[in-house]
Amino acid sequence: MYDVAKIRADFPILSRQVNGKPLVYLDNGASAQKPRCVIDAMTRAYEDEYANVHRGLHFLSNLATEKYEGVRDIVRCFLNAPSEEHIVFTTGSTEAINLVSYAWAAPRLEAGDEIVLSVLEHHANIVPWHFLRERQGVVLKWVEPEADGSLDPAKVVEAIGPRTKLVAITHMSNVTGTLVDVKAITEGAHAKGVPVLVDGSQAAVHMPVDVADIGCDFYAITGHKLYGPSGSGAIYIRPERMAEMRPFLGGGDMIDTVTRDAVTYNKPPMKFEAGTPGIVQQIGMGVALEYLMGIGMQNIAAHEHDLRAYAEERFKGLNWLNIQGNAPQKGAIFSMTLTGAAHAHDISTILDKRGIAVRAGTHCAMPLMDWLGVSATARASFGMYNIRDEVDALVSALELCHELFG
Amino acid sequence: MYDVAKIRADFPILSRQVNGKPLVYLDNGASAQKPRCVIDAMTRAYEDEYANVHRGLHFLSNLATEKYEGVRDIVRCFLNAPSEEHIVFTTGSTEAINLVSYAWAAPRLEAGDEIVLSVLEHHANIVPWHFLRERQGVVLKWVEPEADGSLDPAKVVEAIGPRTKLVAITHMSNVTGTLVDVKAITEGAHAKGVPVLVDGSQAAVHMPVDVADIGCDFYAITGHKLYGPSGSGAIYIRPERMAEMRPFLGGGDMIDTVTRDAVTYNKPPMKFEAGTPGIVQQIGMGVALEYLMGIGMQNIAAHEHDLRAYAEERFKGLNWLNIQGNAPQKGAIFSMTLTGAAHAHDISTILDKRGIAVRAGTHCAMPLMDWLGVSATARASFGMYNIRDEVDALVSALELCHELFG
Repeated sequence: MYDVAKIRADFPILSRQVNGKPLVYLDNGASAQKPRCVIDAMTRAYEDEYANVHRGLHFLSNLATEKYEGVRDIVRCFLNAPSEEHIVFTTGSTEAINLVSYAWAAPRLEAGDEIVLSVLEHHANIVPWHFLRERQGVVLKWVEPEADGSLDPAKVVEAIGPRTKLVAITHMSNVTGTLVDVKAITEGAHAKGVPVLVDGSQAAVHMPVDVADIGCDFYAITGHKLYGPSGSGAIYIRPERMAEMRPFLGGGDMIDTVTRDAVTYNKPPMKFEAGTPGIVQQIGMGVALEYLMGIGMQNIAAHEHDLRAYAEERFKGLNWLNIQGNAPQKGAIFSMTLTGAAHAHDISTILDKRGIAVRAGTHCAMPLMDWLGVSATARASFGMYNIRDEVDALVSALELCHELFG
Repeated sequence: MYDVAKIRADFPILSRQVNGKPLVYLDNGASAQKPRCVIDAMTRAYEDEYANVHRGLHFLSNLATEKYEGVRDIVRCFLNAPSEEHIVFTTGSTEAINLVSYAWAAPRLEAGDEIVLSVLEHHANIVPWHFLRERQGVVLKWVEPEADGSLDPAKVVEAIGPRTKLVAITHMSNVTGTLVDVKAITEGAHAKGVPVLVDGSQAAVHMPVDVADIGCDFYAITGHKLYGPSGSGAIYIRPERMAEMRPFLGGGDMIDTVTRDAVTYNKPPMKFEAGTPGIVQQIGMGVALEYLMGIGMQNIAAHEHDLRAYAEERFKGLNWLNIQGNAPQKGAIFSMTLTGAAHAHDISTILDKRGIAVRAGTHCAMPLMDWLGVSATARASFGMYNIRDEVDALVSALELCHELFG
């Protein structure tokens, strides 16, 4: 039994008001709120258990190291990775994908080599590849979604040519909520000998993820969307790919020896983690992932599926409301435009007066905005703690927008 | 009047015990503890004021953005930079120096070009330059310290040749505490047309820093050593250098437009900050810097100078104790070896039994360890909250080490 009232009570911010109304937080696609257990774990870490990690022998350093390194196995478990040695800590998906771009792709790809990606991608899974285009002549090959916003895995696999060196694909669009069949894409890509990077920033928040089942080479997650702290994250990397990677950030911890003339590197995954890490954030992310697993990602997915169905039901009567992307398989993420004069920013502003937080803009996905033929959308993105009453509040506020601007 | 008792009361962890003894935290060189105001600010940010920054228009996003962006001017003030546009947020010094290496140096330096650095450097200010040696044939030129561990600025300037493109130098050694005259080095380097990067990771913790006075091109600080959160930091960059830099991490926020075929970039400093940043950590760092400025860096420096003098007085009688580096200008950082059988790790372990936290090892400074002719040291590094009684506790525990191993 999914006790959403109990879950809501775990999130302190959900009891606050905004503009005199109870907060209706529907900006989870941008960043999620944090449960009490995550906030408390960080407070405890700073108040009572703080020191730098790895390098000390004293009590507090050992304690902090134990807590920090313990998160690696939590991430492994969350993603069903075969070993915690396959987990590299990052500050989020952006750093994770840049790590792959700089450490794996940059030294391997030559002018004319291709990277296949979809028009659904977030800038975090576009700009690092544009760097390779700008700097070394790599070619970006784009796969378009279907009319309903879904992505045909066969089209992605078809786009792979003899010069393709990587497929970089989202698991779930942050704009349309489209769920992508990354397992089928990986099977097809691997059959052609091409590795696959999956941007799991959104998908891992809303459903169980099993990297062993997907079979992908890289899978990036970001803690702040997973109800964890800002500046936390991780990436799963297949050992074969990790062995092909050179270091990315240089500094303490990632080395074995340093002399004036030479440097040798630590063994993976430490080879890819330089300097004092985000110790307390990673500890907080571990608590967030344990919280999610305690509730059950399958249960969260079912709850959000119900919210999605209810929202779609409520939206049906609003013939002036355009939902961008209606793939059969999608998360409870709705990018909206209104027929009439209301700009996305107007919608966001009016909703905010009612205490409803949605995002207005291009959602770091300009190629998808171009494809959709819109300059911006207002996006309502649901999370584990949202409820049907909040769908009703959203619909009521949208009706007001329509009255004012329609 | 420097009220160290009041300051100590601000740091919750200082009232805890370790191994049945009051904690004596002398591992500040690795990472400092956090005052109540910093911990509370982060708790408040997560409990009541959290959302993603920059991209939203709703109340919480505006509030978080205001708090987060407000930190840029706090850093500007802390470093006396001319404008907050010269401040780039990072996750710490390691990322900051890698930013300079990847974004400024890598596209500019050619095989045979030189970087001048000192043997005092931390790995964070070595390994990014070794990357350029490994990958593009850049030559590292090393300047040795004097016998007492001090660094002659004239020797650094002398080392600059016609192929030198950068001087990368610490402001204060994390091993010996040596204070480096980075202003004289910058003047000499600039006279030869060579930019200077200063690693301020240690110095900024212990004394006032004025980048306008120093005149350097880059100055990196790291929040976790500055009594702020892990994963926070910033770098001051002269606008002329910033204009020469290409982007480093690619993703959201750092772009202006993204299409399938092209990308244009945001204006600096945002151009160098990709994706969702460490929102709450940076807010916490801002509070830490305000706390430090409220007490006064000059007052902190005076307090620590007194501790240094007192420690040196107490060490005088211990003819089996070797302090590595005794530069006239140095911080209250003591790297110690004992004549006899006690290894640095033994010292650390025995001190830990008395609740005293020091670091044993190479302190991410292997070239300096080589130069000192030691395999490791035990390092006691003092901070703003340490007191003479803790020096006494250290000396007493060192005497025990000498008895056991001497």
